[in-house]
Amino acid sequence: MEWSWKDRPRVVIVGAGFGGLSAAKTLIGAPVDVTVIDKRNYHLFQPLLYQVATADLSPADVAWPIRGIFSRHRNISVILGTVGGIDLKKREVVTDQVRVPYDFLIVANGSHHSYFGNEQWEPHAPGLKRIIDATELRKRVLYAFERAEITHDASEQRRLMNFVIVGGGPTGVEMAGAIAELSRWALAKDFRRINSKDARIILVEAGDRLLRAFPPHLSDYAKKALEKLGVEVMLNARVEDIDECGVRLSDQEIKAATVIWGAGVVVRDAARWLSVETDRSGRIAVNPDLSLPGHPEIFVVGDAAKVLWKDGMDVPGIAPAAKQGGKYVAKLIARLAQGKERGAPFRYRHYGNLATIGRHSAVVDFGRIKLTGWLAWWLWGVAHIYFLIGVRQPLIVATQWFWSYLTFSKGARLITGLAPLFEHQSKKAADTKPDLEKAGF
Amino acid sequence: MEWSWKDRPRVVIVGAGFGGLSAAKTLIGAPVDVTVIDKRNYHLFQPLLYQVATADLSPADVAWPIRGIFSRHRNISVILGTVGGIDLKKREVVTDQVRVPYDFLIVANGSHHSYFGNEQWEPHAPGLKRIIDATELRKRVLYAFERAEITHDASEQRRLMNFVIVGGGPTGVEMAGAIAELSRWALAKDFRRINSKDARIILVEAGDRLLRAFPPHLSDYAKKALEKLGVEVMLNARVEDIDECGVRLSDQEIKAATVIWGAGVVVRDAARWLSVETDRSGRIAVNPDLSLPGHPEIFVVGDAAKVLWKDGMDVPGIAPAAKQGGKYVAKLIARLAQGKERGAPFRYRHYGNLATIGRHSAVVDFGRIKLTGWLAWWLWGVAHIYFLIGVRQPLIVATQWFWSYLTFSKGARLITGLAPLFEHQSKKAADTKPDLEKAGF
Repeated sequence: MEWSWKDRPRVVIVGAGFGGLSAAKTLIGAPVDVTVIDKRNYHLFQPLLYQVATADLSPADVAWPIRGIFSRHRNISVILGTVGGIDLKKREVVTDQVRVPYDFLIVANGSHHSYFGNEQWEPHAPGLKRIIDATELRKRVLYAFERAEITHDASEQRRLMNFVIVGGGPTGVEMAGAIAELSRWALAKDFRRINSKDARIILVEAGDRLLRAFPPHLSDYAKKALEKLGVEVMLNARVEDIDECGVRLSDQEIKAATVIWGAGVVVRDAARWLSVETDRSGRIAVNPDLSLPGHPEIFVVGDAAKVLWKDGMDVPGIAPAAKQGGKYVAKLIARLAQGKERGAPFRYRHYGNLATIGRHSAVVDFGRIKLTGWLAWWLWGVAHIYFLIGVRQPLIVATQWFWSYLTFSKGARLITGLAPLFEHQSKKAADTKPDLEKAGF
Repeated sequence: MEWSWKDRPRVVIVGAGFGGLSAAKTLIGAPVDVTVIDKRNYHLFQPLLYQVATADLSPADVAWPIRGIFSRHRNISVILGTVGGIDLKKREVVTDQVRVPYDFLIVANGSHHSYFGNEQWEPHAPGLKRIIDATELRKRVLYAFERAEITHDASEQRRLMNFVIVGGGPTGVEMAGAIAELSRWALAKDFRRINSKDARIILVEAGDRLLRAFPPHLSDYAKKALEKLGVEVMLNARVEDIDECGVRLSDQEIKAATVIWGAGVVVRDAARWLSVETDRSGRIAVNPDLSLPGHPEIFVVGDAAKVLWKDGMDVPGIAPAAKQGGKYVAKLIARLAQGKERGAPFRYRHYGNLATIGRHSAVVDFGRIKLTGWLAWWLWGVAHIYFLIGVRQPLIVATQWFWSYLTFSKGARLITGLAPLFEHQSKKAADTKPDLEKAGF
């Protein structure tokens, strides 16, 4: 195929997550004009988002203004806008604000959490993908304790202090561990009528073990470590329904005011924009060089791409894979812009898996090296500080962590915005205003 | 009057601002049971709130969970709830959740910003009293630049880059200086089509000088310092109307997408709860010991109290006055609880006024000592670090400030939540979608 463009080729990158950002950074100074489009003005370091939900960190600690990253690199422009579609014939990305023409297009818009067809569960069991998810979850968790402190209805108090986390992947394990620590340590002396340590934290997993990406003995370790923190781990437990009262499993009902969804992700929009078929998770099958079949000028990287890795497995939907894909595609485009060949196909290199469970406890799987316990925990911390791409945040995050580590306190436990709606409670309590004196305050 | 209570007197404090918090801290360990009621779960350090609005700090840097402050002090309880009224006969505070009986009551619920009867201006010109005000303002300011970057309509671009601040008190001066620095330094290299330095920042004051609480030569200094930063200061300029297009003064109209209100405050609710008369600002005239006439068991402290200071002037509505009032009343109540006399009336001690203008520029008035320039600026920084009551935040805030100081960058410039509605723009632009190519991107 012949490539043609006036002057310099225009590269448009949709999404400034790990994939898109890594592509844009690789194209700094290349003979191309890059436009990054994202509906948010920041790149989010998702692996630490759960710490915003559990009041360890502030949103600004895990997010960087995209413009700030590229401010000194004049061949990179940024547009804050929502993509509505892609005009494949005219080669234009259509946003709510403008149409952006491209010679090369990188689709890197990531994934959303999926309720597997039960979208009606979403208001009762929010997931954790965006900053507003994290601040919403923080609000729900803290507010549940506040309501438990003043209610005089024992069963309602019980329900307010039950926390159910659905899904035993890294997000679920990390959230369960962090909420357990919040109730056991940070909030331990804050209340007068309830004991925050009485909170039940229940982790529900449909499969027969936690952390399926890890080898079985690390899954066992994670389960034991969570149980030591006071988390109840339920395996082989399938969720049948979630509503304002709590969660129904096949064999029991758990009344809970706070339910957190960490069970799965789905790719939205990308396939619709490109008018192609997808697999069940919405991913798009791409060529070995991550280009879209029939469109050598379009590439899909990160969670949205379905591409073979080895032994019949696909490249996993994790941050390092997105980063590697973005870098690979950027280099390929830079070569084409210089009139060179496309080069070798994409080869994913797997470095390993990490998941933290709580204070002094994590699991690390680097292939030959497998670690648990405090050494794994320190390694997890060092790795995350290292991968924070900015310069300012690592300093602040390290200071915050060090302080929390020494004091067991969580400084960011603010409830901002409006009070969450506890539908179940508000229905019940509307006619029976609790009386503080009666309640023995 | 005879005092009677079972066991220990119950003290209820409404509001955990500077006045309420200082009262509660003074009552730690006293022979009373204290309940602090606030509709938020944090104490807000308002003097630094404008730095959240201008992306220097995060909400968690200027707010502390109230429970955390008192967690180890068992005679202090905290209720998260909204006060709806006070039952003076039964001596109970009525909240949305519970009724809280008191033997002594301290009303310290502070003030709101006031539009002097023009409440319809509020959506177009938000004020700065709460954390959500600050994050809303941050969003509007940053979003205005984002929209200016992509619009192809020159007059709309002009309007998006006009920022009007109404009110030349400390908040207005600090906001104007901080937005000027944001556009001159932090955003300078972020955009490609607009030059953020072209932003007009206009400070509108109805009186004939800025910072009326300071002596005239410091007001002059502040005006010159702001002008050096690029702020246009308009004195004797009365606002006649504010709508979605901008601000109308008596002699001109300023089209602006972002208008910030810093012109005045009013006390709400307190007088209604207590069924008493107020002055024009909603303040309640109290006895020299800050008690409510006819109710020796009820005290009003902070912005809500009207009490004589000297030379016919009232005690000003500033943080130090609220703190001193809270401490005074708490000591008085502790004396009564021990069967002692009420003691001497409240005497306000004025330490001075501080206001910062920008990098290396502030004004300080300590009575005999008056300072301007970089020495005043350092003093302002040290004083605010010192007054941050927690332990964690001063460390974090100092780190952030030091980093911003060295790099001229602002790390917290995140737009979280939904896009603000630019009514004027959206009406105009609905039928004329800008085209990026046409716009010469």
